Amino acid sequence: MYIEKINNPTDLKRLSLNELKTLSSEIRKILLNKLSIHGGHVGPNLGMVETTIALHYIFNSPVDKIVYDVSHQSYTHKILTGRKDGFINPDDFDAVSGYTNIKESEHDFFNVGHTSTSVSLALGLAKARDVKEEKGNVIAVIGDGSLSGGEAYEGLNNASEQGSNFIIVVNDNDMSIAENHGGLYSNLKELRETEGKCPNNFFKALGLDYLFVKDGNDLESLIEAFAKVKDSSKPVVVHIVTLKGKGYKPAETNKEEYHWKMPFSLSTGKSDIDFGDWIDYGNLSADFLLSEMNENKNIVAITSGTPAVMGFSKSKREAAGKQFVDVGIAEEHAVAFASGMAANGATPVYGVYSTFIQRCYDQLSQDLCINNNPIVMPVFMGGFRGMNDMTHLGFFDIPLISNIPNMVYLAPTCVEEYISMLTWGINQKSHPVAIRVPDGSCGYSNEIFEQDYSNLNKYKKVNEGKDIAIIALGSMFNHGKNLQSQISKELNINATLINPRFITGIDKDMLNELKFDHQLVVTLEDGVLDGGFGEKISRFYGDTDVKTINYGLKKEFADRFDEEELMKENRLTIPQIIDDIKRTII
Amino acid sequence: MYIEKINNPTDLKRLSLNELKTLSSEIRKILLNKLSIHGGHVGPNLGMVETTIALHYIFNSPVDKIVYDVSHQSYTHKILTGRKDGFINPDDFDAVSGYTNIKESEHDFFNVGHTSTSVSLALGLAKARDVKEEKGNVIAVIGDGSLSGGEAYEGLNNASEQGSNFIIVVNDNDMSIAENHGGLYSNLKELRETEGKCPNNFFKALGLDYLFVKDGNDLESLIEAFAKVKDSSKPVVVHIVTLKGKGYKPAETNKEEYHWKMPFSLSTGKSDIDFGDWIDYGNLSADFLLSEMNENKNIVAITSGTPAVMGFSKSKREAAGKQFVDVGIAEEHAVAFASGMAANGATPVYGVYSTFIQRCYDQLSQDLCINNNPIVMPVFMGGFRGMNDMTHLGFFDIPLISNIPNMVYLAPTCVEEYISMLTWGINQKSHPVAIRVPDGSCGYSNEIFEQDYSNLNKYKKVNEGKDIAIIALGSMFNHGKNLQSQISKELNINATLINPRFITGIDKDMLNELKFDHQLVVTLEDGVLDGGFGEKISRFYGDTDVKTINYGLKKEFADRFDEEELMKENRLTIPQIIDDIKRTII
Repeated sequence: MYIEKINNPTDLKRLSLNELKTLSSEIRKILLNKLSIHGGHVGPNLGMVETTIALHYIFNSPVDKIVYDVSHQSYTHKILTGRKDGFINPDDFDAVSGYTNIKESEHDFFNVGHTSTSVSLALGLAKARDVKEEKGNVIAVIGDGSLSGGEAYEGLNNASEQGSNFIIVVNDNDMSIAENHGGLYSNLKELRETEGKCPNNFFKALGLDYLFVKDGNDLESLIEAFAKVKDSSKPVVVHIVTLKGKGYKPAETNKEEYHWKMPFSLSTGKSDIDFGDWIDYGNLSADFLLSEMNENKNIVAITSGTPAVMGFSKSKREAAGKQFVDVGIAEEHAVAFASGMAANGATPVYGVYSTFIQRCYDQLSQDLCINNNPIVMPVFMGGFRGMNDMTHLGFFDIPLISNIPNMVYLAPTCVEEYISMLTWGINQKSHPVAIRVPDGSCGYSNEIFEQDYSNLNKYKKVNEGKDIAIIALGSMFNHGKNLQSQISKELNINATLINPRFITGIDKDMLNELKFDHQLVVTLEDGVLDGGFGEKISRFYGDTDVKTINYGLKKEFADRFDEEELMKENRLTIPQIIDDIKRTII
Repeated sequence: MYIEKINNPTDLKRLSLNELKTLSSEIRKILLNKLSIHGGHVGPNLGMVETTIALHYIFNSPVDKIVYDVSHQSYTHKILTGRKDGFINPDDFDAVSGYTNIKESEHDFFNVGHTSTSVSLALGLAKARDVKEEKGNVIAVIGDGSLSGGEAYEGLNNASEQGSNFIIVVNDNDMSIAENHGGLYSNLKELRETEGKCPNNFFKALGLDYLFVKDGNDLESLIEAFAKVKDSSKPVVVHIVTLKGKGYKPAETNKEEYHWKMPFSLSTGKSDIDFGDWIDYGNLSADFLLSEMNENKNIVAITSGTPAVMGFSKSKREAAGKQFVDVGIAEEHAVAFASGMAANGATPVYGVYSTFIQRCYDQLSQDLCINNNPIVMPVFMGGFRGMNDMTHLGFFDIPLISNIPNMVYLAPTCVEEYISMLTWGINQKSHPVAIRVPDGSCGYSNEIFEQDYSNLNKYKKVNEGKDIAIIALGSMFNHGKNLQSQISKELNINATLINPRFITGIDKDMLNELKFDHQLVVTLEDGVLDGGFGEKISRFYGDTDVKTINYGLKKEFADRFDEEELMKENRLTIPQIIDDIKRTII
């Protein structure tokens, strides 16, 4: 095994071309083994094995600096830069993150997980090199799927002007997470078909030099191409064509499914994971919307490159037809586009992950909320029971969305309430409505909910008690219910329980009423406290005798946390809250 | 005068070409007269007179829908759509806003003021038209300066895929606010020089049809071109070349100066406005940075298309040389680029307007703060004493920036403190540091300030008193001082006065101390209360006996407000605050 001898990129340089080829097979085996046991980004990593080997063979990392876009394709890079144990030894699988990580290695320059950032970040490294009058290559690696994002374009547009050494490897596998969308991809296709020779060339139009590599899984061509551009005195694009999922048939065939995958059987390619009672709010949303679309041709579901977020599998996308639009990874466009549709009488429903909604704050504010257009925006995976990488947290959507004027941000607590709110959202024409989709732990309540939320900021009192009131937001409602019951047992107090429903405003009438017979109001939310929901309640009660305690998450980029631990660290467990209550009201 | 007969676009259609030409001269005169008396966007509007006449001559607004990017070039559109009085009669000058405005006219589809949005918004209008199976043209008008923004690219990339009628007028005057930056502009130059015939074509590479108009100030060519694309069944770009400032020599010659201008003399072109004691923090920043740059070649000042924000006039840009980078209107790139520079040991200083920082939240979070890179970011025109159009408010930067982990957001209160903080910022290597530049009313204090802010979140007690504490943030510090003095007079209480300095964290030690001999803590900030600074103080004191009142702005898109009125509406005047205090502590 050659891999045994590779402890850093220098070791690679001693191998012959044939040995490098053998190494790439070894790495592919290692990757598949870990991925099948552990889960992770399958397609992107299998496609990039040869490219990564060739990059490290030709360039001298970390003096030469390679920056990976999204960095979910950086596993081979990690294997070659001293972190192979994290891929070979099951005990060490969790010792490496799924993205580049500055704490892990001097060969990683950024922690990133969102797309379209590598060109700008790397261009910054290059500019610093230039002002410091140092030497060395800077290489940005970006996939074709990431090219639809505005930040990538802004970076490309600035690269040629900077002028000095800068190498952009465009890894073109003709896929985003799902299929690619946008006019650019017709140009990439034309470039592939003419082997880079067609006169119309997006990259050249941005003032960049250009080199085409027909087979980006062929080590020899890659090494030749990278050797040619090494030490280039100006920016150059190396356009390589790779196969997503290369070397594993199921991944080559079902590219969307294998982009990111739970643990699976290597022989069958199938995942067999029991999600128990966990609710799939994505599927549920797609089914609901498809049925509404049949009745109302003005409803259009929108995704920005992640159709699975709202459950739109290939067959459901086809069923929706023109009533489903994938704009590619382009969240800014998605929001402005939705606002435009609503301005002209259609009913756009933009489903988006909490972690990605932050890519379009200005569009939410400027294009959407200033114009008060009635779009509906389900926000998925908010809270701490979804993704848990520091680059993909769902903690920040409340401060981000809820402090924008005119926005109505709703927090349903169960399936029925979610569907009620979604139904109201698509049938009203007065507000931009965002809905914080509950996490999968929030099941069916078998209760009936209001169909009309037009009387804004009216909270719902679920239990009328005294002394203590619990205001438990969205996915935290069940936790609030448990807290109420424990307070009853331990403190013999019948606490009031409130489902606030609205994140974007406070119910002054109800909060004023509480003043008469409540000493303490406790708020629960599954987002950062800073700028969040609870602070608004504390501000309201600031000049009164009612005390408040806000529970939520502290402002930090928590990384690969354990949910229970995170709750403890933030004093979110019921015994901790009861302790605090005792200290406050007695 | 033909203009007298024009009350809506239909009236235009009766005029002959020669009459239209006369009309364009009349409009230019009207524009120059108002602009010289009132101030406004000079260059963009003078350049667009003929284009706007031709658009309304050929298309049938509002059935055909024209969407203007930024919309600071929409004055002629307003004149032609029933709002000419707002440009002719000085008494009505303030009755029309400087941007398109849905409340003013059915011919306006959006309130916008930020760049790069028109393509996406208009594409939404077109999609709604298609699902509703209606007819009509949708036209997006976008300037070349706006094309550097990622949102514009995301929109262009999606236009060809949508496929149906969509017309994009690219108004190319070879300028942004200042000169254009980016590789794209070499392609636009090539297109101009070859009259649209060069094989390499950015727009065609994005799958769009393309038409070139050599003289975009020639009515006949414009009418011919628009007639050709009218009712097009697919997306097409009409690339027109116009002269920014056309028809007024000083504006044609000094394009940057006349992009937006205060009132000026028509004969001399000079503005003669006395700013009194108003501090120009832009100039002051540029001078300080230029002097630091001389000593330290690693300092690089960055702007995203608004070099004036940090005082970098043409001569100062030249003096800075390679230590100044204008990335064009591309805030996302600016932040990621700065983060990359800092990661490689340089010292980037990104100066940006409060209203535009919201264009790059994800970059602040993901590209910058997760990586904790030491950039310095002065944020200008935060608060309510800068811009006052609803599309350009400085109220939202505190919730936006201060709730991101790792960020250090500082609020200086005067010139000396600003320079101290800026000095610390560029000399430290531990944090991303944003500085909320005071508004111009905050002058020199003649006091000496700490040079070291590395002990984070330490507030500064300026007066030690009891019973009441005033925590007055940044530009509101002087107001806090006045409040303290009035409290002393009216209530005979020596109130504690605190300059918190840090927006991103609270000084628990100091706040805990206050508990012993203070009943009430009052916070003052010049931003929206929701998600802002004061709420954090209220959360801290929530479970104690200390009462709090947070003063700031309510969550709304205030429009063309009067400062004094705005303060009254938000109970920010000293008599109002004193009334509240009396009610609370007695």
